Amino acid sequence: MFFASDNTGPAHPKVMEALTRANDGYAMPYGADAIMDEVRARIRDTFEAPDAAVYLVATGTAANSISLATLSQPWDTIFCATQAHIQEDECNAPEFYTGGAKLTLVPSDHAKITPAALRRAIEAEESRGVHGPQRGPVSITNVTERGTVYSVAELTALCDLAKSFNLPTHLDGARFANALVALGCSPAEMTWKAGIDAVSFGGTKNGCMGVEAVIFFDPKHAWEFELRRKRGAHLFSKHRFLSAQMLAYLTDDLWLDLARRANAANARLVRGLKQIEGVTFLHEPEANMSFAGWTRAGHQRLHDAGAAYYIWEGTLDGADPDELLTARMVADWSMSEENIDRFVDLVRG
Amino acid sequence: MFFASDNTGPAHPKVMEALTRANDGYAMPYGADAIMDEVRARIRDTFEAPDAAVYLVATGTAANSISLATLSQPWDTIFCATQAHIQEDECNAPEFYTGGAKLTLVPSDHAKITPAALRRAIEAEESRGVHGPQRGPVSITNVTERGTVYSVAELTALCDLAKSFNLPTHLDGARFANALVALGCSPAEMTWKAGIDAVSFGGTKNGCMGVEAVIFFDPKHAWEFELRRKRGAHLFSKHRFLSAQMLAYLTDDLWLDLARRANAANARLVRGLKQIEGVTFLHEPEANMSFAGWTRAGHQRLHDAGAAYYIWEGTLDGADPDELLTARMVADWSMSEENIDRFVDLVRG
Amino acid sequence: MFFASDNTGPAHPKVMEALTRANDGYAMPYGADAIMDEVRARIRDTFEAPDAAVYLVATGTAANSISLATLSQPWDTIFCATQAHIQEDECNAPEFYTGGAKLTLVPSDHAKITPAALRRAIEAEESRGVHGPQRGPVSITNVTERGTVYSVAELTALCDLAKSFNLPTHLDGARFANALVALGCSPAEMTWKAGIDAVSFGGTKNGCMGVEAVIFFDPKHAWEFELRRKRGAHLFSKHRFLSAQMLAYLTDDLWLDLARRANAANARLVRGLKQIEGVTFLHEPEANMSFAGWTRAGHQRLHDAGAAYYIWEGTLDGADPDELLTARMVADWSMSEENIDRFVDLVRG
Amino acid sequence: MFFASDNTGPAHPKVMEALTRANDGYAMPYGADAIMDEVRARIRDTFEAPDAAVYLVATGTAANSISLATLSQPWDTIFCATQAHIQEDECNAPEFYTGGAKLTLVPSDHAKITPAALRRAIEAEESRGVHGPQRGPVSITNVTERGTVYSVAELTALCDLAKSFNLPTHLDGARFANALVALGCSPAEMTWKAGIDAVSFGGTKNGCMGVEAVIFFDPKHAWEFELRRKRGAHLFSKHRFLSAQMLAYLTDDLWLDLARRANAANARLVRGLKQIEGVTFLHEPEANMSFAGWTRAGHQRLHDAGAAYYIWEGTLDGADPDELLTARMVADWSMSEENIDRFVDLVRG
Repeated sequence: MFFASDNTGPAHPKVMEALTRANDGYAMPYGADAIMDEVRARIRDTFEAPDAAVYLVATGTAANSISLATLSQPWDTIFCATQAHIQEDECNAPEFYTGGAKLTLVPSDHAKITPAALRRAIEAEESRGVHGPQRGPVSITNVTERGTVYSVAELTALCDLAKSFNLPTHLDGARFANALVALGCSPAEMTWKAGIDAVSFGGTKNGCMGVEAVIFFDPKHAWEFELRRKRGAHLFSKHRFLSAQMLAYLTDDLWLDLARRANAANARLVRGLKQIEGVTFLHEPEANMSFAGWTRAGHQRLHDAGAAYYIWEGTLDGADPDELLTARMVADWSMSEENIDRFVDLVRG
Repeated sequence: MFFASDNTGPAHPKVMEALTRANDGYAMPYGADAIMDEVRARIRDTFEAPDAAVYLVATGTAANSISLATLSQPWDTIFCATQAHIQEDECNAPEFYTGGAKLTLVPSDHAKITPAALRRAIEAEESRGVHGPQRGPVSITNVTERGTVYSVAELTALCDLAKSFNLPTHLDGARFANALVALGCSPAEMTWKAGIDAVSFGGTKNGCMGVEAVIFFDPKHAWEFELRRKRGAHLFSKHRFLSAQMLAYLTDDLWLDLARRANAANARLVRGLKQIEGVTFLHEPEANMSFAGWTRAGHQRLHDAGAAYYIWEGTLDGADPDELLTARMVADWSMSEENIDRFVDLVRG
Repeated sequence: MFFASDNTGPAHPKVMEALTRANDGYAMPYGADAIMDEVRARIRDTFEAPDAAVYLVATGTAANSISLATLSQPWDTIFCATQAHIQEDECNAPEFYTGGAKLTLVPSDHAKITPAALRRAIEAEESRGVHGPQRGPVSITNVTERGTVYSVAELTALCDLAKSFNLPTHLDGARFANALVALGCSPAEMTWKAGIDAVSFGGTKNGCMGVEAVIFFDPKHAWEFELRRKRGAHLFSKHRFLSAQMLAYLTDDLWLDLARRANAANARLVRGLKQIEGVTFLHEPEANMSFAGWTRAGHQRLHDAGAAYYIWEGTLDGADPDELLTARMVADWSMSEENIDRFVDLVRG
Repeated sequence: MFFASDNTGPAHPKVMEALTRANDGYAMPYGADAIMDEVRARIRDTFEAPDAAVYLVATGTAANSISLATLSQPWDTIFCATQAHIQEDECNAPEFYTGGAKLTLVPSDHAKITPAALRRAIEAEESRGVHGPQRGPVSITNVTERGTVYSVAELTALCDLAKSFNLPTHLDGARFANALVALGCSPAEMTWKAGIDAVSFGGTKNGCMGVEAVIFFDPKHAWEFELRRKRGAHLFSKHRFLSAQMLAYLTDDLWLDLARRANAANARLVRGLKQIEGVTFLHEPEANMSFAGWTRAGHQRLHDAGAAYYIWEGTLDGADPDELLTARMVADWSMSEENIDRFVDLVRG
């Protein structure tokens, strides 16, 4: 019953097999491996973006920070949701990689930035000339950090707004596949057709061992990204092992298949929990993450049974067993129906 | 005939098997995995350093840059050999991670810093108070970038000198195992007993897929390193896959066995080349790397046969087939005797 | 009728005379001038802080950024009011000098942080270990950016709270003297006795040409500040000209006299405006800055007469002469009663 | 007898008078003062560069660091002489402002980079792709840090070389005027006609209180420089006091007059010393700085008489009064003939 995060589960066997296959003889280092050629072609094809610049790194924070640094100047401010991973969970990596850019936190609705709030935030940086931070990229996270999903129309509206101020746009797609299958659209529709300039395309949370792609739809950013990646110590010598993961991930729709499994697992969990009286959801779950509250007594039963997840507010210790505490639960592709049902049963008590 | 670098060869099968074993069920992320506990204990035991702080990252540049940043202030200068990897091959990553520290290049003898040169370099930074850079860490590379190896006495002399100026010391051990087996000493003797404070302990070039340990013998550096690693985007969520590589590497002396194979391969290559008239060595090879010169015609024969290595100076194209060009050759653990002998034969012509 | 800022007025003649006196013969550079010895002694005496480290720089942004950098780590977040100068008017200088620290904007009441809001902001950074930014210094501005003044009790409450989390405290005192005379307390009471660790002590806005002192009550910060100042290019070779300004400023209570004049000028302005029907104040002015609204027609009359001040929201151009627009007005020591009265008359129409 | 540096002398009275004149009433802050308009026009005229972007800062380190940062990327290396001020005397400010660029030290002849050495240094950074630092600007100092002066032909040769590699060029002109009058050329000939892109044009060492101009001959750098200056906390609110100094400096050829005086003072010193047997010069003095050696006994006599200058190597204390110690002597515009002659007499003994 591991719902702590989709980064606690295993890699898919096909990914592991691909690593073993890649481990044959010699290969050119630093991204010059032949597998990377296939990855690049595959991603360009998948995104209908024949000119895109495509790179691999091993962590989501690297993908976000280095791509945002490529789109920013150190005196800029990056617009993002209050709950964004780049704000809350990267220990100032964006500030480090950009050389000191600021983050402007845009109020959101269930972690989704609204165009009105974004407009206010952008306009608020308008009038100070050299004194204030300059307007920089808009970073959007889909799936959001609260498990909600921007529709294509919503993404488009935000990107249109950014473009009207001539600002570049970045998509934090640590859970790109989960959003995509929830939306049922194409990768192009969820990105460049909506106005996205750069994507952190996650693999790690969805069945890989540790690989994320960075995609720039305009290749003018390519060389700067390569330098920033190397300078950040994120260029792998034995790069073929990043390439192999990503190629397996993109082969035979494995990435979509795994995301569907994770989303389905979450949906089963949500259905079960919703049938329990008194369980309340903070946000409507739309992908593979849920936030719901139930009694401390229910949490205690789960704890005693070894279930793993985050108690989002409050702690397990407390006097009142009826007090409601919120749980964050994330389902990965490998979650079994038995474990989900058992989890629900324990909440029910 | 791949002598381009020890990062072009495959990972050892035992490392790959360990990855597969580690890929079972759920594991705590971000270094809280159980395998990391074993790694930490194993490294402490191997280095006879029960209090050491031990961390894993995926690239040698990350290991060097983040450990040096932890030992430095942004207004310091780091003393290193002119040929150091941190100077020549990391695209300013040390400057980036330290927040703008300088590197002072110390003249060397076959890439080995001499105590006299180090003393001159340190003393030259003495008299400018707040105006000049401040004296920072001394970084020593063993195996050096030219294939030579510092003896324990030589390391001790440099560290003693650093300590006499109250400067911390760092060992770039991207090829730690190759140096160790060449010296026949213990890991403790090559590090803290000689006066080293922090080590980049390489795995990638010696049979792993992509893992390096950073070891601080004084654990006071631990928390700062953890923050710097996360801020640099080098903390892996699925950390168990770093741990598993390192544990396999340290199990049953695999790391020493692989280094012996690589050094032996290089020795065979050197023996063969030395028997060829006109082949001259720039440095006396002491581990798994060699620099030797022979005719352009010989290089052409190798090229035509598909051999891979760096021509260190000059290019293959040229009018004079008798002109001498230098090759850099690095042997990894997987190099076959047949390939070595064939390479030598092609040089001989 | 120059109310644009207290940085648009002249330096006081005594400051200019001091510069001329200082310009006699040779003087040791870089802060080793004899006048600086007097400044240091005077500030230590004024603040009843015999061990304080005292430095001079030429801009308020330098004072703030370098002192905050000295109190921070790059992975920290600095707590400040939403309206703080370090957030709004320094073009990411704090992020630059700290090496990428973040600013956490604390909601405020008329630009004054409340202890409850500060506690919430600090506690919100509590639970993410290495993932989130670490808690850094609390920076308080007095006079605030909206012309209000923290009482000693309010400063003490914020500092007590910071100390309870073991966080250092910084006072942005660009208008230190204006706050001090408004409060009628001693410099020590407004700073270290209330729990402040470091002060940006402004001179520029209150009759100097360009000088700010930085005061650390704990001298352990001294050497790091000196290095950061030099590295930031803020150590003046002909430092005596900074020293001379500051010494004149502190002599015969000139600094207090000028602040009293500025505050009195603002009070006269406020009294006049309050007698005009329809003029409304956004904040209760407590020092030398006011924010008040009146009709566009009134602004037009001022504009035509050459008055200088910021229209805080909206613009002069518009259809409706009765629409209310807010003005920001700052009075400096040199503001004449005639100009104030004429300004008020023009608002009245 | 103050020969310690040209930053220890007084400002010229005309500069002080200009400050007093500028201190009249209100002025727009942050470079929007009317005097700055005059400065800009005067510098453009002086340099025959009607499109040049012109800015003022208060320290030479700021002028160098911010202009170099504007010409560089963080992954670049800046080529400069081993003795350059940016290398030896700025406490890593260039690394700080560039965000971690490296400095490549080019061997020099009496502190003058030779084209051959520059070519070797540039070519040595050629072959490592993303791995090594990228080639960045060439920074040339005239007057050099050893008192020698590049001819226009020498400057042109270095700039031609830089241009052939498509690298921008920067002139550290902390002693610009001293070089110019030594060369007898025009400001345009010493800069953009020779191929210089950006100039740090010093005023502080030559009779100002603290002001340096930064000149970009291509105005495309203007906005970035403005942002970098503000972010570095080097944009003065009461900017008119920088403007006033620079305007006085440029009026009626004051800057040239003062430089001629300083150079003449140095020439008189050199003539005097050369007549003393045993006094030897390290470099041929060409402007206002000299390096010469004489006996420890001679130094002792000067010390006892209160003379101020740097003993460049060794210390005054020592057993052998006949041992030669080198002095660095810098003459400023205010140096009297009496003091020079007395200094020479004391060396003679």
